[in-house]
Amino acid sequence: MRAIKDSVHDYIEVAGVAEALLDAPAVQRLRHIKQLSTIRLVYPSANHTRFEHSLGVYHLADRALDYLDVTGARADTVRAAALLHDVGHGPYGHQTEGIIQRRLGRHHDEVGELLTEGVVGETLRDHGLDPDRVAAVVAGEGRLGQLVAGELDVDRMDYLVRDAHHTGVPYGTIDHGRLLRALTFRDGDLVLAEGNVATAESVLVGRALMNATVYRHHVSRIAGSMLERASERLLDETDLDPATFARTTDAELLGALREYDATADAARRIHDRDLYKRAVWTERGDVPDDLVAADYHDVREFERDIAESAGVTEQCVVVDNPGSPSMPESSVRVAVGGDVRPLHEQSPLVRGMQESQRVQWRFGVYAPDEHVPAVAAAAERVLGLGGVGDPTE
Amino acid sequence: MRAIKDSVHDYIEVAGVAEALLDAPAVQRLRHIKQLSTIRLVYPSANHTRFEHSLGVYHLADRALDYLDVTGARADTVRAAALLHDVGHGPYGHQTEGIIQRRLGRHHDEVGELLTEGVVGETLRDHGLDPDRVAAVVAGEGRLGQLVAGELDVDRMDYLVRDAHHTGVPYGTIDHGRLLRALTFRDGDLVLAEGNVATAESVLVGRALMNATVYRHHVSRIAGSMLERASERLLDETDLDPATFARTTDAELLGALREYDATADAARRIHDRDLYKRAVWTERGDVPDDLVAADYHDVREFERDIAESAGVTEQCVVVDNPGSPSMPESSVRVAVGGDVRPLHEQSPLVRGMQESQRVQWRFGVYAPDEHVPAVAAAAERVLGLGGVGDPTE
Amino acid sequence: MRAIKDSVHDYIEVAGVAEALLDAPAVQRLRHIKQLSTIRLVYPSANHTRFEHSLGVYHLADRALDYLDVTGARADTVRAAALLHDVGHGPYGHQTEGIIQRRLGRHHDEVGELLTEGVVGETLRDHGLDPDRVAAVVAGEGRLGQLVAGELDVDRMDYLVRDAHHTGVPYGTIDHGRLLRALTFRDGDLVLAEGNVATAESVLVGRALMNATVYRHHVSRIAGSMLERASERLLDETDLDPATFARTTDAELLGALREYDATADAARRIHDRDLYKRAVWTERGDVPDDLVAADYHDVREFERDIAESAGVTEQCVVVDNPGSPSMPESSVRVAVGGDVRPLHEQSPLVRGMQESQRVQWRFGVYAPDEHVPAVAAAAERVLGLGGVGDPTE
Amino acid sequence: MRAIKDSVHDYIEVAGVAEALLDAPAVQRLRHIKQLSTIRLVYPSANHTRFEHSLGVYHLADRALDYLDVTGARADTVRAAALLHDVGHGPYGHQTEGIIQRRLGRHHDEVGELLTEGVVGETLRDHGLDPDRVAAVVAGEGRLGQLVAGELDVDRMDYLVRDAHHTGVPYGTIDHGRLLRALTFRDGDLVLAEGNVATAESVLVGRALMNATVYRHHVSRIAGSMLERASERLLDETDLDPATFARTTDAELLGALREYDATADAARRIHDRDLYKRAVWTERGDVPDDLVAADYHDVREFERDIAESAGVTEQCVVVDNPGSPSMPESSVRVAVGGDVRPLHEQSPLVRGMQESQRVQWRFGVYAPDEHVPAVAAAAERVLGLGGVGDPTE
Repeated sequence: MRAIKDSVHDYIEVAGVAEALLDAPAVQRLRHIKQLSTIRLVYPSANHTRFEHSLGVYHLADRALDYLDVTGARADTVRAAALLHDVGHGPYGHQTEGIIQRRLGRHHDEVGELLTEGVVGETLRDHGLDPDRVAAVVAGEGRLGQLVAGELDVDRMDYLVRDAHHTGVPYGTIDHGRLLRALTFRDGDLVLAEGNVATAESVLVGRALMNATVYRHHVSRIAGSMLERASERLLDETDLDPATFARTTDAELLGALREYDATADAARRIHDRDLYKRAVWTERGDVPDDLVAADYHDVREFERDIAESAGVTEQCVVVDNPGSPSMPESSVRVAVGGDVRPLHEQSPLVRGMQESQRVQWRFGVYAPDEHVPAVAAAAERVLGLGGVGDPTE
Repeated sequence: MRAIKDSVHDYIEVAGVAEALLDAPAVQRLRHIKQLSTIRLVYPSANHTRFEHSLGVYHLADRALDYLDVTGARADTVRAAALLHDVGHGPYGHQTEGIIQRRLGRHHDEVGELLTEGVVGETLRDHGLDPDRVAAVVAGEGRLGQLVAGELDVDRMDYLVRDAHHTGVPYGTIDHGRLLRALTFRDGDLVLAEGNVATAESVLVGRALMNATVYRHHVSRIAGSMLERASERLLDETDLDPATFARTTDAELLGALREYDATADAARRIHDRDLYKRAVWTERGDVPDDLVAADYHDVREFERDIAESAGVTEQCVVVDNPGSPSMPESSVRVAVGGDVRPLHEQSPLVRGMQESQRVQWRFGVYAPDEHVPAVAAAAERVLGLGGVGDPTE
Repeated sequence: MRAIKDSVHDYIEVAGVAEALLDAPAVQRLRHIKQLSTIRLVYPSANHTRFEHSLGVYHLADRALDYLDVTGARADTVRAAALLHDVGHGPYGHQTEGIIQRRLGRHHDEVGELLTEGVVGETLRDHGLDPDRVAAVVAGEGRLGQLVAGELDVDRMDYLVRDAHHTGVPYGTIDHGRLLRALTFRDGDLVLAEGNVATAESVLVGRALMNATVYRHHVSRIAGSMLERASERLLDETDLDPATFARTTDAELLGALREYDATADAARRIHDRDLYKRAVWTERGDVPDDLVAADYHDVREFERDIAESAGVTEQCVVVDNPGSPSMPESSVRVAVGGDVRPLHEQSPLVRGMQESQRVQWRFGVYAPDEHVPAVAAAAERVLGLGGVGDPTE
Repeated sequence: MRAIKDSVHDYIEVAGVAEALLDAPAVQRLRHIKQLSTIRLVYPSANHTRFEHSLGVYHLADRALDYLDVTGARADTVRAAALLHDVGHGPYGHQTEGIIQRRLGRHHDEVGELLTEGVVGETLRDHGLDPDRVAAVVAGEGRLGQLVAGELDVDRMDYLVRDAHHTGVPYGTIDHGRLLRALTFRDGDLVLAEGNVATAESVLVGRALMNATVYRHHVSRIAGSMLERASERLLDETDLDPATFARTTDAELLGALREYDATADAARRIHDRDLYKRAVWTERGDVPDDLVAADYHDVREFERDIAESAGVTEQCVVVDNPGSPSMPESSVRVAVGGDVRPLHEQSPLVRGMQESQRVQWRFGVYAPDEHVPAVAAAAERVLGLGGVGDPTE
């Protein structure tokens, strides 16, 4: 047994299969993937990694299993899944998800292959666990899968608190001690026990406020969009294959971008925080629905059209059309007066939150500082969108 | 200048008129009034006082004045008001507000008399300040009064963070550093600068979640209702006059209740946390509007009727008909895209929060453990309300 | 089982005999005894009580028992002792220890009688525990007694961290998670496992630094000395008997002092923080050994002599001759290279700390502000001690 | 003015020359140098960077200047120096200090050249500051240099608190608010005002305890020694020049080590935390003085001799002969009773601390797991040192 000091949960005791998994290269690699990717460019303290987050998720899962009185191989399967739940992430985490999805056709929680092969697979089997069942829990399948990847999962509980701790923004500081103790099973579903409507609401609002101030901060989105475009180009124009790409680390990707001429400038800009600026920044109400519905290829086409119209190279225009924010917490099931109800039925807050996320949504076009006026004008011509609505939001 | 160590804001530097006011008995008295009155019976760490809170409010006001570039006598008036804003509180703070209002006709922030007389009045005048103007700021009047008693006041900023720190419930931990820096004047009104919709929302949701889990916890409401009934009786039946009552401390009131035979049992119960239990606990939807509209005298009449019907003494029944929760934060003015808008126009969260507060509202009838069944049955007969809807909420 | 939210340890789960004991009046009384008595006059946030501290000690004991794999009735005896370890404290805790010792001949951890009688005794017996064995653990007897009252006890672990949290002074923030995990038994003794010399040192230095800045702050010592003198007088001159005195609470004692004419002024001064000031404040090196050796009766005689010489009433002079600071942590046993050694053999820090405590030691004489010069001069005549050596220390 | 959120100091307000310096590549580079280099391999949360630390040092300097009432260009020089004080660090900070010293003959705080050239030099001059004077302050020269690099500097105040926050080890949590307010000048020297002996001691013990548990943890020392050896080899055997080496980042150095065959294994081991283990680990008392006095070249010779004797390649043996720990805090000047004394004269703790550091000192020889027995035996033959004295310390 090892007791590992964590700045969020104090000591985390790692034993059994989890302790053995720690040394696997696929797990150690998570030390080199930042939890909040480019958000460190806004909140300089946010350098925490998916390794410490994975330890935290393991810790919360371990405690939840204890409260739920789940033991034996089923519990070990969940513990392993908790520790391994992020091994499918590419470099810069969510920032390269779209690329990996488009090129490899898999989502970061589809980790079947990763858990079967190499040291991880061997370790799981050595401890009598079935890699496929661990992978199923990572994907949120089954009764206990909800604990690792569901509306009320320990992943969320850890990242909200950890991101709050490391950014210094307090909104994510939920009461995970209460959440863990409130978890219970009803008819095979994980629900919150009576008296916890506000507890459930607090997760919802915690995440919504973190979205607004941290996760969707425009500086991070600019850097993230630049990184994504450069990565696409690297994959298109060099012999880097997507599977290898998906297993690099943050630093390895940035290094590779720097070494390739056509992406060196983007890499330098991200490295030195010399980022593009907003040429367009438009509220949801001012963006036509068909534009919101534009897919990746449409967006790339817009970029080319705007660049041409502005008389700049294609690399000087980044169009950022964020997806609608999801709110899985709104489906959390809570026991109220003997019934089990989804939170959105019980809490009038949920709808407010959903609309609030919509209010925060912005469509952006970014360009190098010196080309902002030209790109803004071109974007208006091409997309019919004008100016930076609220430049400080 | 004195630098006082505070567990929430670290060092608080107190100088000038504020330093001189510290030694006034009316300010020192606040050391003996707990900030959260009976809530310590639910959250045992919540023993913080209105003295340390007043220091905190002074500190935040001082910083806000600095950011707003307000100086001289106007600033000193606000600083004094911040430090003195709670001297009008009776014993157990909000728990005796109704009594003081009914008997003395004044609210806790009507402190004109208290600030004119004695050491406080003398100290203010010695420092060239007008007690009446300080009192006006305490009452929220004028441009700068908004800073001390308004939708965005430093009182709220301090108590949310302080109550979170001392209860251990994290929901109140707002980002006061950002709020203070975002304050600005527009056309004589205090507003939040561009980019702070989520900041304003966070105060709103922070308070709503603290309401649900802390401020309106049923155990505290039971103890508070028992204290209020016993205090009324003490005032009715002894020669304690309301003005003296209003200036006692928590311990002095509890001592007085213990010394008077008819209230000794209530005092002992509060002292030893041997409280009444819920006989009725009903959601808003199940309570007829005219019952919700019942005033203090109606409620006392209900108590007598229920007691008679249950065959117990009047002291064995406490009816708790809480007022509707107010949401002053919903009127906070925020700058958005060049306009100034009240938060409830900009944020879809506000309505959700208002409805959420309504969902949390409960009508209660409390009785000694052994009389709960009889009182519950009698309450149903008298009020037409049945049972304890959600006994764990 | 009840999960109680604590601002230091988050949730504390109280079950079995401990849960039953919570409702005993002797335990609830601890809500009304502040952990740091008069220190709140220096650190205004330090209003935490012996009730929450007792819960904390229970919690740490519970975890230690778990790590040490102690179960059954032996464990329950320790848990009960941890929760009850402070019920023997008089009002204002350590400030009235001397009085109770002199008048009742018992120390605060001699609680045999208190644990046998009333609700506590009944509850212990109902749960199959022997009150005398619980009392023995409170007194530190036996193998497991060391855990509750020894050099490495959970009492110390809780109060250091809790006092740091509530004063805002960080020095007490030790790593209790590591200490608990490092506890082990060797030949019947509780020792720290290999690799924990620095862990042991940290407790030692944490307490020494808290002594210097918090526990022995002169303002608290002045208020404490005034309280002790007034309490002695109350016991001498009224029919209040020592056994009753020992069971009052902070507020009850202050109330009693205020009601008796001869002590009313002292009570008002403590209540309103209008304290005596230092007339003499002398380092150890400047105080003759026989003066340091003076006992309570000698000290009272000095007070009378100084008062007479200064031409003031006896109540205007308080002589404060603090005992030598103890350093039980220096005997903590640590495993080093296979041996078990007491910390003072292994750590050169211990001697430094002991001398450091001696350097901090001060002999004080206190008087009302207006009599300070006369009392200082008289003290010099009577005791041969001059002036306030370091007025700001 | 920019207000940057920091997880330690909350908002840091950066204005004037400091704000302009933020964008310089030499400052942005600090985002890519971890504050605690290889310590993240022991404390996984310790991923904070020299960039956020530099902001913190700037912030504390700014506040200290305010308390000391230093304004104008002198203050701006100090602010710039505070922000820039770490730009001289090579990759992995202190871990490559020896290499840079040996090859470039400069210490990390000799930054004259770095501050004169490029964007930094230009920015300083644009704001009317003299780069050489800024560099002098970084080197600790002059009255105000003490504030940035002296016994009581703000560098130390920030890193102790920041490292405690990010490792989770509380010992470094000093009271910087008190330290800053206690700073004062006496005869041109920075001293702590009366009443602050314990405050000074707390910095001393904070650092000593952090040394024992964090800064000198053997796992970090193993990784650091491996990194240093591999870097030396890279510089010896490739065309990487020392000046370029000194300006790389952590990731760039690790990347370069991985690309060169002879160092690829070391790089992989550090990346995946597959480290050498201790073959020898000996207390100071058991190491002959001439061995302690061995310099870098002697040590490399020992490595070759041990490798030969053990029959392994030279890369399989790392000898770690740490220098004596320095204790600059022991010279802190404190005002006591009107005099100014160095702390080591006033505080008996200082000697204890110095001896304690000696007790913690260890001489180590490290090797791959499978070669530990052979290397241990060879080390005994070559150096006369045996075994791992205390394997868990």
